Amino acid sequence: MITSDWLAAFAGDGKVSARLADKAGIADMLEVEAAFSRSLAKAGVVPAEIGEMASAEILAAKIDYDQIIASAMRDGLPVPGLVGQLKEQINPKLHCAIHVGMTSQDVMDTSLLLAIRDVLNDIESRIVDVVGELDVLGGRFGRKTIMGRTRMQAALPVSVDHRISQWAFPLRGHLERLEQLRPGLLKIQLGGPVGTRDGLKGGENSIPAFFAEEIGLGFAERSWHTNRESLLDLGNWFSMVAGSLGKIGMDISLMSQQGVDEIGLSKGGSSSSMQHKCNPVGAELLVALSRYCSVHCMGMHDAQIHEQERSGVSWTLEWLCLPPIAVATAGALRTAMELLEGITDMGREGNS
Amino acid sequence: MITSDWLAAFAGDGKVSARLADKAGIADMLEVEAAFSRSLAKAGVVPAEIGEMASAEILAAKIDYDQIIASAMRDGLPVPGLVGQLKEQINPKLHCAIHVGMTSQDVMDTSLLLAIRDVLNDIESRIVDVVGELDVLGGRFGRKTIMGRTRMQAALPVSVDHRISQWAFPLRGHLERLEQLRPGLLKIQLGGPVGTRDGLKGGENSIPAFFAEEIGLGFAERSWHTNRESLLDLGNWFSMVAGSLGKIGMDISLMSQQGVDEIGLSKGGSSSSMQHKCNPVGAELLVALSRYCSVHCMGMHDAQIHEQERSGVSWTLEWLCLPPIAVATAGALRTAMELLEGITDMGREGNS
Amino acid sequence: MITSDWLAAFAGDGKVSARLADKAGIADMLEVEAAFSRSLAKAGVVPAEIGEMASAEILAAKIDYDQIIASAMRDGLPVPGLVGQLKEQINPKLHCAIHVGMTSQDVMDTSLLLAIRDVLNDIESRIVDVVGELDVLGGRFGRKTIMGRTRMQAALPVSVDHRISQWAFPLRGHLERLEQLRPGLLKIQLGGPVGTRDGLKGGENSIPAFFAEEIGLGFAERSWHTNRESLLDLGNWFSMVAGSLGKIGMDISLMSQQGVDEIGLSKGGSSSSMQHKCNPVGAELLVALSRYCSVHCMGMHDAQIHEQERSGVSWTLEWLCLPPIAVATAGALRTAMELLEGITDMGREGNS
Amino acid sequence: MITSDWLAAFAGDGKVSARLADKAGIADMLEVEAAFSRSLAKAGVVPAEIGEMASAEILAAKIDYDQIIASAMRDGLPVPGLVGQLKEQINPKLHCAIHVGMTSQDVMDTSLLLAIRDVLNDIESRIVDVVGELDVLGGRFGRKTIMGRTRMQAALPVSVDHRISQWAFPLRGHLERLEQLRPGLLKIQLGGPVGTRDGLKGGENSIPAFFAEEIGLGFAERSWHTNRESLLDLGNWFSMVAGSLGKIGMDISLMSQQGVDEIGLSKGGSSSSMQHKCNPVGAELLVALSRYCSVHCMGMHDAQIHEQERSGVSWTLEWLCLPPIAVATAGALRTAMELLEGITDMGREGNS
Repeated sequence: MITSDWLAAFAGDGKVSARLADKAGIADMLEVEAAFSRSLAKAGVVPAEIGEMASAEILAAKIDYDQIIASAMRDGLPVPGLVGQLKEQINPKLHCAIHVGMTSQDVMDTSLLLAIRDVLNDIESRIVDVVGELDVLGGRFGRKTIMGRTRMQAALPVSVDHRISQWAFPLRGHLERLEQLRPGLLKIQLGGPVGTRDGLKGGENSIPAFFAEEIGLGFAERSWHTNRESLLDLGNWFSMVAGSLGKIGMDISLMSQQGVDEIGLSKGGSSSSMQHKCNPVGAELLVALSRYCSVHCMGMHDAQIHEQERSGVSWTLEWLCLPPIAVATAGALRTAMELLEGITDMGREGNS
Repeated sequence: MITSDWLAAFAGDGKVSARLADKAGIADMLEVEAAFSRSLAKAGVVPAEIGEMASAEILAAKIDYDQIIASAMRDGLPVPGLVGQLKEQINPKLHCAIHVGMTSQDVMDTSLLLAIRDVLNDIESRIVDVVGELDVLGGRFGRKTIMGRTRMQAALPVSVDHRISQWAFPLRGHLERLEQLRPGLLKIQLGGPVGTRDGLKGGENSIPAFFAEEIGLGFAERSWHTNRESLLDLGNWFSMVAGSLGKIGMDISLMSQQGVDEIGLSKGGSSSSMQHKCNPVGAELLVALSRYCSVHCMGMHDAQIHEQERSGVSWTLEWLCLPPIAVATAGALRTAMELLEGITDMGREGNS
Repeated sequence: MITSDWLAAFAGDGKVSARLADKAGIADMLEVEAAFSRSLAKAGVVPAEIGEMASAEILAAKIDYDQIIASAMRDGLPVPGLVGQLKEQINPKLHCAIHVGMTSQDVMDTSLLLAIRDVLNDIESRIVDVVGELDVLGGRFGRKTIMGRTRMQAALPVSVDHRISQWAFPLRGHLERLEQLRPGLLKIQLGGPVGTRDGLKGGENSIPAFFAEEIGLGFAERSWHTNRESLLDLGNWFSMVAGSLGKIGMDISLMSQQGVDEIGLSKGGSSSSMQHKCNPVGAELLVALSRYCSVHCMGMHDAQIHEQERSGVSWTLEWLCLPPIAVATAGALRTAMELLEGITDMGREGNS
Repeated sequence: MITSDWLAAFAGDGKVSARLADKAGIADMLEVEAAFSRSLAKAGVVPAEIGEMASAEILAAKIDYDQIIASAMRDGLPVPGLVGQLKEQINPKLHCAIHVGMTSQDVMDTSLLLAIRDVLNDIESRIVDVVGELDVLGGRFGRKTIMGRTRMQAALPVSVDHRISQWAFPLRGHLERLEQLRPGLLKIQLGGPVGTRDGLKGGENSIPAFFAEEIGLGFAERSWHTNRESLLDLGNWFSMVAGSLGKIGMDISLMSQQGVDEIGLSKGGSSSSMQHKCNPVGAELLVALSRYCSVHCMGMHDAQIHEQERSGVSWTLEWLCLPPIAVATAGALRTAMELLEGITDMGREGNS
């Protein structure tokens, strides 16, 4: 609930914010409802024509966003209002193929993962870019020397390559972790009111498989309404990416100190009172965003416990904490790239 | 960095968000700059006329918000860009009375407190309202009986009054804490580039006093650029208020369970799949917001350490964490009021 | 649940740990039970002689600590087992004056505050000592010059006094905060099973007042079983003290960097591989302890919500989080004192 | 820094605490030093006989624990003192094969992982046991019925099996995650003073491989002094395990409420004031431990940023936060097992 546009522009990320905003999110929900209608048809639970028509009309529905907000303030989430709008607009003969056997959480979770899938692709390519830029810096300055420092004290000289390798190594690791993460994460949610799939009368086995196929996510053998571990994995992963960028920011802040003078930066923030200053605000921002992600990640851990068959408490907390981590991680990657591209020199001549 | 409008509407608070948004914030900054110009005049550091004219022109300046955002993305905060816009628009003869001896942090911190002053007045009156509503409920249902429960187990019957008094008591305490909090919090920030007030040539003693008077905040005997304790007190206070409301929400959730049936609620959230449900989403939201405030409060504690004369890291983290606590606390008070007003019954007849 | 003795010795504090350990804690509980017995007598609820004899026998009881641990593993707290041991040892004729009308929480909370009272006196005198040592350093090196740094960049030279004043100012503020904190914190807990004082048959008004007098804590007009704000205030205060020491540690780490060279330290940690190193491990420890306190403080905020008349969840979490903050804050004060005493030089000659 | 023995006994775990305590930890460090000496010999950097003799003498050394603590208070960690003791006791002719090319962090991190390896085996088998007990409960009560509840409101009846499956499913997932976790985690640390392996003169490639073989951990292609992601993965994993147990505890607390009455428990905590109470303290403890792990996990995320070649700040914070998560997770598994074994009934007869 950041209230300032300039702060969101400085610290956040427009692209990921937009992907996680209501306009895209409601479109995702319509995709989910439409895919579910087609799944009912494919499973033979409703006539093929009915399912296809329902899907088409769902995708063509005109959504009243103000009403979505008003209903969400009452219901605590937008799905009941959205389904209500669909049913008002769509011929009652098709209602048998709309949302029957699903519950709000199925729509919320599955649509979230459509967004997360796109966000992860974006984040992944940004990490690849940052790693690439680190390779470029290694090529340009890697053989020069800096003072290796442990506990902030001069230890022994090291090559610039050594420092850069400490920055790049964990980022490469995060790309591998991402490969491990995706299969368990990017999967459908489908459980019905209490997570039993009992409402999929006759289609308990077939509908989920068709639904996964239609929506383009992985199959889930059971509902995971109250098992939020895969989203917690995601939050942890974002926070780790932000932390690895935070280390780069911290090191650059320290290297750019007068007296240490181990890095040159072409860009920086101006001061309102000191003309001579060129502040490495991007480097500092990386550290701040890492800590921002840590605290939101703590919120995700706090939200792990879902009592009984669905916890409004933990689920709401999850909604409040996960998107900010994604946006902040994206903002950190954007900031890191700009910061690294602005490096004009590292280290000094001479062997370590 | 919440990305969803419906979630912000459900969990946040439009009024407090608006008070902390850029439009109001930039207006606050102009008030601060204008008050400072008048202070320079009152202290005799610049001619009275020059100071007054500078103040008037600052307040009349036309601000280009897009440029503010662009400059903030470079500088890490909006003040250098804002001062730049002022200097472009205002006659150079008046520049000697604009921002001379201040630094960006003086403007940021002082203007923040103008907003916080208003927000606290708003929050205070909402707490008073909630306490009043609790008194009303006590009058209506206080003599009825509920089962007192410890460790979630039936212990001994208690009066509804006893339960309500546990809800109201800490809120009354928070109103007292607020009285203790305000004097140390609502004070000017004025230190100049490195916090020494050295740039207030000749006016080190007088200018701060006039500045406090002109801007309507308390006097600060020295700059507190790196001493963020009063803002940490504020964050802790917000989090405690939200926590006390969280207890109310938790208790109402538990009281409204079928089988316990100790409360009647006229309003609730609908389900997309179960017609019979009337979910106490407001009660759950109160618990979620309490945890949301806790994690942001953790960010505030994390941001306490400002290295040297100013930390961009900790300061940025503070900006990212404090407004969300304020908005969430306001959202919790709004939600609590609606929830309490919707109570139709509590407890059962018979003495405890 | 730190498992390492050397780490506890390095980062913790033996004195405060001992004051919060079981041996002292059980002794506090016996004091509480004895004071309560005398209060019953003073209030006329039991004959004076019976109350005095019960008090004397409680204080003379021989406690089996192994049995305390065994019972606590079953009951989740030591009081039922402790009361059981008392009743076994003490003549049944006196049982009417033992624990009647109290509950375990009354004993736990009141005895905790006896320990906290002592710990706060200790902590307070350590803060006074640190402030005194800062004054000494100011006297020795205050007029020398260092480079003022903002956002880790050289800004303008400042006096060593300016830097030291930033360290001392918040500590002085914490001493004032402590004065504000004590009255609301150091008070009896007395509520009986469900917090209503209903078990004090006839002595609801008089017993609490006598109990406060006998035990030497402030009076509480009602039980605060579920209102943990004063303990949260305490946790926040400890964390703020640790944070202010963390800033000192952070600054000293930065000042001691080769290339910056603005401080001389006579002591430091040795390295197992680099003979030339003298690591300012105390300075780093201060920053680490500040963060350690922050995360435990987050646990305290998380523990604020006590459902219904007593929450075993939140109360247990409070037990797990509060003592570590106290011990870490004490460890930080001990470390800060050693670090400051080891300073041999600050700044350089010449005016700023 | 828990100060109370009864609390450690109630909430912690003696077995895992002992494995992580100094006595075992120093023994691990000696194993590490000895394995390294043998590696030097195998790599031909020192004569085979010298390496073997050094290894044997290291393992036979008599360690003065008091001196370890005293040196750790000065150095911030025990390794310099330990290496000092070794060199005092061992023939100087063998010193060329002792610790040459290593640094304290290599010893600390590698020895930690020896302990973690054992702890993970223990934790794994406990998870298997809990899952097994859940299967037993499913067999006994699975076909009975409980009311499925969402947002704490009665939704639709479900089978006891459904509830139990929500408990067991994530635990099975954690066993799979553990398999993924181990290879990246259980590996040697070897980097020398600044992490470059430059001190392994001539043996940069061979010594690490032999070292991994001798100590029985995985190979690491480079030092990971400042890349703490694998330990962060571990902390997250522990916290997730504790969270999954927390859900079980939360559900059992709710099921055991009078009025809900969906579970029978044979054991519980007694009250000092209410004879009729049998408190499900184990269920509450599970929730508290989950939150305790969350806040320590937050400390681990906070500790991710290691500046330059080694951060005393972050490393110390990691030492303070990781063992408590391990002990608390073990305590949670112990508690969960006792709780589940004490279940005498679940649900009621009749189809859902």
